[in-house]
Formats: sequence, structure tokens, C-alpha cells
Amino acid sequence: MTRYWWVNHKQTVRQEIAGNYLWSPKAEANGVRSQFYDNLRIAEPGDFILSFASAEISFIGQVADFALSSPKPEEFGSVGIYWNREGWLLPVMWKSIPNPISPQHLLPTIAALLPPKYSPIHPRTGRGNQKAYLAEISHPLFSAIIEHAHITEKELADEMAGLSQASFHSFSERLELAVEETIISDPSLGSTEKEQLLKARRGQGVFRANVGRIECGCRLTLIRNPKLLLASHIKPWRSCTTSLERLDGNNGLLLAPHVDLLFDRGLITFTDDGDVIVSSKLSSSDVDQLGLAGACRKNSGKFLPAQKLYLQYHRNVVFIP
Amino acid sequence: MTRYWWVNHKQTVRQEIAGNYLWSPKAEANGVRSQFYDNLRIAEPGDFILSFASAEISFIGQVADFALSSPKPEEFGSVGIYWNREGWLLPVMWKSIPNPISPQHLLPTIAALLPPKYSPIHPRTGRGNQKAYLAEISHPLFSAIIEHAHITEKELADEMAGLSQASFHSFSERLELAVEETIISDPSLGSTEKEQLLKARRGQGVFRANVGRIECGCRLTLIRNPKLLLASHIKPWRSCTTSLERLDGNNGLLLAPHVDLLFDRGLITFTDDGDVIVSSKLSSSDVDQLGLAGACRKNSGKFLPAQKLYLQYHRNVVFIP
Repeated sequence: MTRYWWVNHKQTVRQEIAGNYLWSPKAEANGVRSQFYDNLRIAEPGDFILSFASAEISFIGQVADFALSSPKPEEFGSVGIYWNREGWLLPVMWKSIPNPISPQHLLPTIAALLPPKYSPIHPRTGRGNQKAYLAEISHPLFSAIIEHAHITEKELADEMAGLSQASFHSFSERLELAVEETIISDPSLGSTEKEQLLKARRGQGVFRANVGRIECGCRLTLIRNPKLLLASHIKPWRSCTTSLERLDGNNGLLLAPHVDLLFDRGLITFTDDGDVIVSSKLSSSDVDQLGLAGACRKNSGKFLPAQKLYLQYHRNVVFIP
Repeated sequence: MTRYWWVNHKQTVRQEIAGNYLWSPKAEANGVRSQFYDNLRIAEPGDFILSFASAEISFIGQVADFALSSPKPEEFGSVGIYWNREGWLLPVMWKSIPNPISPQHLLPTIAALLPPKYSPIHPRTGRGNQKAYLAEISHPLFSAIIEHAHITEKELADEMAGLSQASFHSFSERLELAVEETIISDPSLGSTEKEQLLKARRGQGVFRANVGRIECGCRLTLIRNPKLLLASHIKPWRSCTTSLERLDGNNGLLLAPHVDLLFDRGLITFTDDGDVIVSSKLSSSDVDQLGLAGACRKNSGKFLPAQKLYLQYHRNVVFIP
């Protein structure tokens, strides 16, 4: 079901609009979690977002993909230097509104529609709630506002469909390229290690050999033919913070290509005991058509303690519940 | 079953040994096919090869992967400039023999073991057959020669297993990087077109959109969820000779990731009428475990005339019969 959201951009509005995303830290600077940040993990492809900055709503967005874990985009520069480094990046397609809307002027109409908790603006003053970032709003509030912009939801959806897709793939590719550059220019790494780290991005080389010493085949399809298996990172290559993590055989599984895609996109994960957990976002008919319905109900085998550390990351950060 | 081969290297022996491959044109300069070149397509992973150059056998190789279509490696320089440009590249792991063997000196022992047709050396003079490149030899001939080198087949296999794998992946990656460089430095291409061509390598961007206008889902799994589908080139991106071919929607299929891998590696292909052809090199248990046994027996739907042209290339060049 489509959800509706309202974002109070911070200083990074220009980067977020131009870059087709929203980004937030995962927690406040003091480590406390915030619903306004957690909401980036809850937003789903197809959801609509009102973009509020400088007291006006000037853009409407549609979520293009699930959020992925990402460091603060470099283009933010020193803005938000106190934010927690690891955050959520939500791919969003933005469309500008010809005549920006002032929610303050619409207060008589919309005040009663604002959420009682986690409201993005104050119901009496119309000013932005300082703490708010991404706030869920009701469909009636969303409708009331776009009506003032003389846009229908149908028109919005049609226009969005014509925009080039901001996708998980495009952002993970950018993050990986940024990591590659960091590796290539790291003076503390030798050329052999650099090559090993770069090959590991594609599940090749030393990383693959290391995984092969721990896993003997695909845990779901039971395939053992190496030509049909990919070496997949449990904690994604782009999210690893050390060379050790990127090359660690315990941070990998050998998976058939379709299982690899589901695991990589967070559509399946594993319990420490080896049971398969299927995301609520993966339809049972897709699981059926992939021929994985039986395998998803079975135990896939125990994990080693060292694998469990990486699996915990996968469940918490990569998996889409 | 393991086959045994003998290669008479031409002037490119150093490049082939150091680069872990054999390369031959697909046909003689006059366009006539040669069994010695066709043999690169017949050799299989695990096969052994005696490397003969300068009248001596100094290396023994083991085939690491099936041959792939590849232009003449650039490192050959102007050598072989008259060879047909498109050829076969066979990944081979080479191991040097401590004491090189002179087949001429062994003629009394081996002459009777040489093949009557397509012999790599002349049974009386022991000189290399000028026309020969990769020649099949019998197991007894292979054994007789390695016996003189004081090596057993078992020792060979064990040593090869310890070498880093020369693989289809490593060579296709190198070919793709070479194509990328050509695209990036092509002054006749605009920056938008360059970006489209580079994205097409990964099945993204304009290419994917073009394929989506022709194909509506995976022909084997029937999956239609775009997040679970890859846009796969029929004629591989690295083998395309024009921008048109690289971006042509008719040169693509939308495939689930496991089907994409089989198609990409030439383990399945399609007839013009849409029947699935499974390679003899793909075991039925692997097909079963991938959940594709039923789909491989069904018709996958007709193809358009423009798709058939690319499919013909896939059957002739990519598919491993």
C-alpha cells in the first residue's frame, strides 16, 4: 500500500533533489535512534514524498527503491560533519511543482490533518519541526496539498514513470566506485592487496577462494558446480570498513545467481541457526517462479561463529523485513 | 572424458604461455575453416595440452575453461596481422617442464602413436606440421611423453589445482575493459552515447529500457518483477561491433539471474521458434537444482526477425553444444 511522506530537508536540499535521493544518519549524534531517520528504512518504492524547504513545498518525489546503507554522500561536503557517518540513502525521483506551496498559508485547511505525533510542522505556527526529517503523513493531507498545486496523483504517477529510474543499482554502483577509488589511492596497500580487494568486489580471486574453504555450495539450491556459483559478500563489499572484512572467507556465501540476487538485495536472509527468512516484499509467486519455495522452508545448515557476526549485519542493515 | 592435445605455437608462444591462453583465428586467412582452429571450441576444462615450440615441449597445460570468441589479443602486436580478426581464446593454465623434451629424439617410441590425420609433427622427420595448431592426440602418446619428463598425470592435476584459475570471467572482463577504453577514447561518440554504451555493459540504462519494450519477462521462469530480471545481451556486449548492436533492444532478453548466467555462458540457447537448447556440458542435475527442468522442455515463445539475427550469433559462437 502506498504511503505518504513529508521531508524537512536540512541544509542539503540541493544535493538531495539534484541527486535523486534522501539521506539521513541512522541515529542522532548522541547515538539515539530517531523515528524520522528510521522512516527511510520503512519507505517503499512507489511511496510519495512532499519536499519541504525554506518554508515551501517545491518538489514532489516518488520513492524509487528501498533504502541502502551508505556513508554521507561526499557532495554534502562539511555540512553535517557531526552526523553519524553511516546512514540511509533512499532513492527518490523528484519533480518540481510549477507554483510552490506555502503550508503556513494553508494551515486553516491542513492543521487538522497533521499527524498528532511526529508532525513535520507545528499545527499552529506552520513552522518546520526542528527535529523532523522524514515524517509519515495521511493520504488526505497529501491530497489536500497537491490539490492546491493543481496536480492529481494519477498525473504524478504517470510523470514519474517517464523519469529515468534512480535505483538501488545506480547508487550501489556509485558507492562501489567511490570505495574503489579509495582503495586504488591508498598508499598503505600494496599492489597485490589492491588487486585482491578490487577482485573481491565481483566475488573473484582470493575472496572467492577463501569462501570456498568454508562453504561448499549453494545453501538453497544445493548446487556445487563452481561455474554456477557466485561468491557473495554477507556484509556488502561497499559497506566493509577494512581489507580484512572484504577478503574474509567468513564474510561470504557461495550462492546460485538468483539466490545471490535475493540475498544481495535483502529479499532473503538467514537466522544464526540457518533458517531462511523471506522478506515481506518478496511475493510468494516470485519465490515459486524462482523455484525456491521448498528451499526457503528448509534449514540451510548451521553457521560458524565468525559467519554469524556478518549475518547479524545482513539481517539488521541489508535485509528488508 | 579428458582429451589430450598438442599445440604447435606460432610466433606468439611467449604471450600465450604468460597470458594463460591459446588463441587462434576462427578460419584461415582465405576464409576456409581448419580443424586445428575448430579444436579450440572442442577442448574442455580439464583437458591436457602439450606445448610445442622451437622443436621442444617445454610446457604442459590444462584447459581452464571453454573457449570464448575474442579478437586477437593486442599483446600479439603486428604478428599475425593477416589472420582473421575474430578468433577463439582458450583459457589454459601452463606449467613449465624442468627438462624440456625433444619429440624428434623420441620418434622411435612415439611415431606409431601419432594420429594418422591432423598429426602435429611429421612421423618420419619429427618436424612440426606447418598447418597444425591445436591437434588432438591419444592418451598413450600423452603418457609416453610426460613419462619422459618424469611427471605423472596425477602430479600434474594436483599442481594445476593449486594454480590461480584462468577463467572465462577473467578473460571476458579483460575484453570488456578493452572495449570500454575504446568507447571512452572514441572522438566520434558524444558523452551521452558513451554513458549509454558503458551502462549497457551491465544491462542498465537505455539498453535495458529498449529490451523492456520488446520482452516482457523471463522466458524460462516467467518472472515479470523488474527487480528480479537482468537485461542480457544475446550477442555479448564485448563482441558487438557497433553502438547500434550494443544498445539494440532486439539484442537483449530479460532473464532471471540464474537463467542469465546459463545464457551468458552458452549453457543454454534458443531455436528461432523459441525452443530451449541445453548444452551437453550442463548436467541435468544442475538444471534440476536450478528448478529449470520443466521450463527447458517448454517452448519459450517466438522471436522477432530482428532477434533471430542475434540468436543465430549466440547459437554459433556463444553456445557450447
